[in-house]
Amino acid sequence: MAPQPHPLSALSIEESAIARDVVRSLNPGSVIVFRQIFLYEPPKAQVSAFLELEHAGKVTDATPRPPRLAQVWFDVAERDAPAKFAESVVDLKTKKVVSTRTTLPGQHASLIIRDCNLLTLPHSESDEIREVPLACERSDLFKSKIAEFKLPEGFEAVVEPWPYGAADPNDDGRRLFQGIVYAVNRKVGGKDSNFYAYPIPLIPIMDAQTKEIVRVLEVATGGGDDPLDAKTCSENIIDHCKPAEYVPEKLPQGIRDDLKPLAVVQPEGASFSVVDGNRIEWQKWTMRLTFNPREGAVLHDIRYDGRSVVYRLSMSDMTVPYADPRSPYQRKQAFDFGDGNAVHPAALNSRFVTSANLGKYFDGLLTEPNGDVTESKNVICLHEQDNGIGWKHTDWRTGRAVVTRRRELVVQYIITLANYEYIFNFKFDQSAGITLETRATGIVSVVNIDPDKTAPWGNIVSPGALAQNHQHVFVARIDPAIDGHSNTVIYEESTPVPMNARTNPRGNYYEVKQTVVKTSTGIDLAPEKNRTFKIQNRSKINPISKKPVGYKLVMPATQLLLADPNSVQSKRAEFAHHHLWVTKYEEDEHYAGGRYPMQGKAEIGGVADAVFRYDNVEDEDLVLWPVYGLTHNPRVEDWPVM
Amino acid sequence: MAPQPHPLSALSIEESAIARDVVRSLNPGSVIVFRQIFLYEPPKAQVSAFLELEHAGKVTDATPRPPRLAQVWFDVAERDAPAKFAESVVDLKTKKVVSTRTTLPGQHASLIIRDCNLLTLPHSESDEIREVPLACERSDLFKSKIAEFKLPEGFEAVVEPWPYGAADPNDDGRRLFQGIVYAVNRKVGGKDSNFYAYPIPLIPIMDAQTKEIVRVLEVATGGGDDPLDAKTCSENIIDHCKPAEYVPEKLPQGIRDDLKPLAVVQPEGASFSVVDGNRIEWQKWTMRLTFNPREGAVLHDIRYDGRSVVYRLSMSDMTVPYADPRSPYQRKQAFDFGDGNAVHPAALNSRFVTSANLGKYFDGLLTEPNGDVTESKNVICLHEQDNGIGWKHTDWRTGRAVVTRRRELVVQYIITLANYEYIFNFKFDQSAGITLETRATGIVSVVNIDPDKTAPWGNIVSPGALAQNHQHVFVARIDPAIDGHSNTVIYEESTPVPMNARTNPRGNYYEVKQTVVKTSTGIDLAPEKNRTFKIQNRSKINPISKKPVGYKLVMPATQLLLADPNSVQSKRAEFAHHHLWVTKYEEDEHYAGGRYPMQGKAEIGGVADAVFRYDNVEDEDLVLWPVYGLTHNPRVEDWPVM
Repeated sequence: MAPQPHPLSALSIEESAIARDVVRSLNPGSVIVFRQIFLYEPPKAQVSAFLELEHAGKVTDATPRPPRLAQVWFDVAERDAPAKFAESVVDLKTKKVVSTRTTLPGQHASLIIRDCNLLTLPHSESDEIREVPLACERSDLFKSKIAEFKLPEGFEAVVEPWPYGAADPNDDGRRLFQGIVYAVNRKVGGKDSNFYAYPIPLIPIMDAQTKEIVRVLEVATGGGDDPLDAKTCSENIIDHCKPAEYVPEKLPQGIRDDLKPLAVVQPEGASFSVVDGNRIEWQKWTMRLTFNPREGAVLHDIRYDGRSVVYRLSMSDMTVPYADPRSPYQRKQAFDFGDGNAVHPAALNSRFVTSANLGKYFDGLLTEPNGDVTESKNVICLHEQDNGIGWKHTDWRTGRAVVTRRRELVVQYIITLANYEYIFNFKFDQSAGITLETRATGIVSVVNIDPDKTAPWGNIVSPGALAQNHQHVFVARIDPAIDGHSNTVIYEESTPVPMNARTNPRGNYYEVKQTVVKTSTGIDLAPEKNRTFKIQNRSKINPISKKPVGYKLVMPATQLLLADPNSVQSKRAEFAHHHLWVTKYEEDEHYAGGRYPMQGKAEIGGVADAVFRYDNVEDEDLVLWPVYGLTHNPRVEDWPVM
Repeated sequence: MAPQPHPLSALSIEESAIARDVVRSLNPGSVIVFRQIFLYEPPKAQVSAFLELEHAGKVTDATPRPPRLAQVWFDVAERDAPAKFAESVVDLKTKKVVSTRTTLPGQHASLIIRDCNLLTLPHSESDEIREVPLACERSDLFKSKIAEFKLPEGFEAVVEPWPYGAADPNDDGRRLFQGIVYAVNRKVGGKDSNFYAYPIPLIPIMDAQTKEIVRVLEVATGGGDDPLDAKTCSENIIDHCKPAEYVPEKLPQGIRDDLKPLAVVQPEGASFSVVDGNRIEWQKWTMRLTFNPREGAVLHDIRYDGRSVVYRLSMSDMTVPYADPRSPYQRKQAFDFGDGNAVHPAALNSRFVTSANLGKYFDGLLTEPNGDVTESKNVICLHEQDNGIGWKHTDWRTGRAVVTRRRELVVQYIITLANYEYIFNFKFDQSAGITLETRATGIVSVVNIDPDKTAPWGNIVSPGALAQNHQHVFVARIDPAIDGHSNTVIYEESTPVPMNARTNPRGNYYEVKQTVVKTSTGIDLAPEKNRTFKIQNRSKINPISKKPVGYKLVMPATQLLLADPNSVQSKRAEFAHHHLWVTKYEEDEHYAGGRYPMQGKAEIGGVADAVFRYDNVEDEDLVLWPVYGLTHNPRVEDWPVM
């Protein structure tokens, strides 16, 4: 008998097939187009009971286990009618659907990206977002619009598919996609040429049901002195643009050779081990790793020296609103997790110059339209790195110096969404610290601007290419379990105390104030008060400090969402309005921006709604949602790749 | 004929000897005790003229050079009278004193630390701060105070010397030092035992002139419920303390063996080169490096791809005020650069596990009391490091991924001041960026606390050891030269714009406002506005963006000084009141906290005074003083080494 899967392990190919078959069998006669099939995590109480037995070494084959559940996201397609989206949770043992959820009117399932290579993909197997450029190829409307421009010899249009953003007030609720149009110098540049250097002011809109281009918007190319809706461009739309290649063999200056190799070698191998499929062990850390297409890497049951720290750790969502006030750029607002399910492209890492075997790569399962799954290779990379001096002390009496290095364990994944890439690193250190690092790279999103103009909503990064100002606001999800599930969040502030005879006679004292978060809420940082969050277990008192055990949550005070609170950009990203949200744990509540941000006009069922339950969060099973980001007003130096 | 030294090279041993002899010859019959001899940088106009010729390849032996100047810091000692401090600038060619500066009444020269090993140092050669423990050994007063405590068998007192902090109102201006007293378990722990685990509530005060202990303060050991001046301790003062060893061979649990080696190897060597003694070349970067005992590593004439970026880059000062309201802890306020001159201990780096030859170490000259200099080995380390992914982009059309690594060049030095160490890294990257990284490590400063008490001004990190809350506020000095010396600082803010038909019809627009800093001033960060500083050269317009060339200064919005503005702690650290100071360049104005912070009651001649010149700083030769730090309310996990 095969060993039973751990409750916190991703679905196997076989389990996924069971889920597919159950859903199919319940919809006889319908065409089912599968979007995703992945683990539905069993109820926390059941998992926790199992984990306690597991960590006590008491699990046997006879130990009761939480049910294995799959969530199946799919469309039921009927001829000539809009496909209906549903999510079913399937019990893999009983082969029954436990529950089914559908979208509300106006809500849309997230998009999926199945393959990274459109050029080699048969049309019939393309996913819906990749239909956008194909639909443009078929569209007479689009072709006539493009023909109004005189593209230089050898150039052809490239349509980059984007989610539609918030539906306009006059949209009828249909599922739509938009395209941002560029031109590629096919003749000289070849297939890998950087097409972003040649923006074309057209935005085709595709009906996701009919796969037809329903309209093609002509967008403004003026500067700050032009009316917002002025169409000022000439037919020679890209004649003032310049190439901006970044692929090594296309660099006119060649590759610089002034860096000598630097290699990280581990002659005795890595210090971590991966057992039982997905259990990572490194120094005093243990955790379980899974992959799913909505969040990427998810870490479960993180323990240090046998003590529970975090039940579940993941990225939850992000939003990237653009600040160009001209229509339809208010709809340029990506939710790269919530819209995107875009964790498919493999995390090509190249961390190790000479020793590729030092990192361990994990694969993930992706679902095909017919419900089969394929293995996507190397979606997560696990490796160790050195991060300089750990600690050092020299005794002034003796000169004796002791110095340590700082070794870190990194769980890394990378997502690519059109022009942008994001690198997410969960880093574990030797002093029981966890760091979530986010790096943004890729190519800034540019639009065409007439020669000799500038605009207050962006910066020109290449001739004719205006990079629009925008923000990235990320939200992570921390489901803490500090020595158990009964945790409390406090915030600590260091504040001045006026000089006074009783408590501060010489003026050097400052007060450290602690405020307990009693009810679910969103809170902002206050760096001038050094406001710091702590997650405590108040039933466990540290015998030395005589204070509750806990973890400090150190966050950068980055700027929150700037859009007007009445704008649709703002309403659909309520999570981006505070630096930290604290909610009471609720089963299957993972997505700060709501379950279906695609094309939505408002955040529904996201963290802002969760807060309005006004749950008690003192000594409770709670969830923290840290929000951070960057306001990116691009600069020339961001070009061609940030 | 030996090649002439570069104007931005540190003094040679021979040059230092000339300076010594000139000062000696001008003070016949007096005893001169030398404190420091190091390069006095020639006037910027003269150096810049030379640099322009140098970078144009036009320097010959006949090229006129700025004068070589030495600054000599020394005491003129007369029997039974306080030594008089002076600084003379000596022209090494004419062998004449160009100028001399002395301290004002109440001002004191910075202290010096000449050697790291007190145990092996002959008493006669000790420096003044190391006299504190020696004076205690001789002091009947101190011995009688210590004898009031019953130290367990095998324990003996350790007196850790500290600067005195701000003079009390009733002090007569004499130069004083204080000691913080601990006990070391000599018998069991041996000489490397961690004495900080056993704090003793005595503070001896030494007269620097007579080297005598003039008083011994008994300090409170109570908790938050006791009056601030209560002396509540028992004679068994360290009986409730516990050992806290950190030296590897003393760890009761031994060294962990669960990490396998990780080595950074560069089989073809490092990519940088050092020519002409101190000129560093790495990729497109060039710069000159000097060492001086006041600031540590100083970088001059930093250029990228031949374009001037920074004329001079250094740490300027820092302050570490403690927040325990009980006297005399208001005097626990270190200025680790201004007080300390404490960059002596070698920067033991151990960066490279297997290839120690990859880093290049630089030595520095230190001055002996008799004016001789000795070479201090390895005070600065230069090395390369890998910092993960540099940039990455995957073309969604083709799947073609291009990924680069991020290589950095690091200039590192480390200072040790009693319990603390600071690691300063100037990092240069491949996209023309410069990062100043500061890491704090070492041992938190603790005082004795009675059993079963806690206090609001600190946390207990080990039984009987209360780590007092404190701040570290650092100030760096950037003397920019972006494409020349005529630069301007602006700050840019990203601010919401209410929805309106004319400029923001859909609410997604935000405004990027720029404000020019016209007059010397101190400015605070405003993360809610994403306030960002830029240093621009407004006479050079980038041809693409059509905006002035410049550098962005990205700073963390850390907490500024918390002490009451009327407190002496606050008055002597005016620089810690704003995040960024902008001043007009003034010759030899390097120290944000003033030239003589030692024992001062107020910051004199520091950056706050410089601002009050109300100089124009538009299109001027200017200096930026970024301020950053951390509020450290210690936690148990900081023990025994942070």
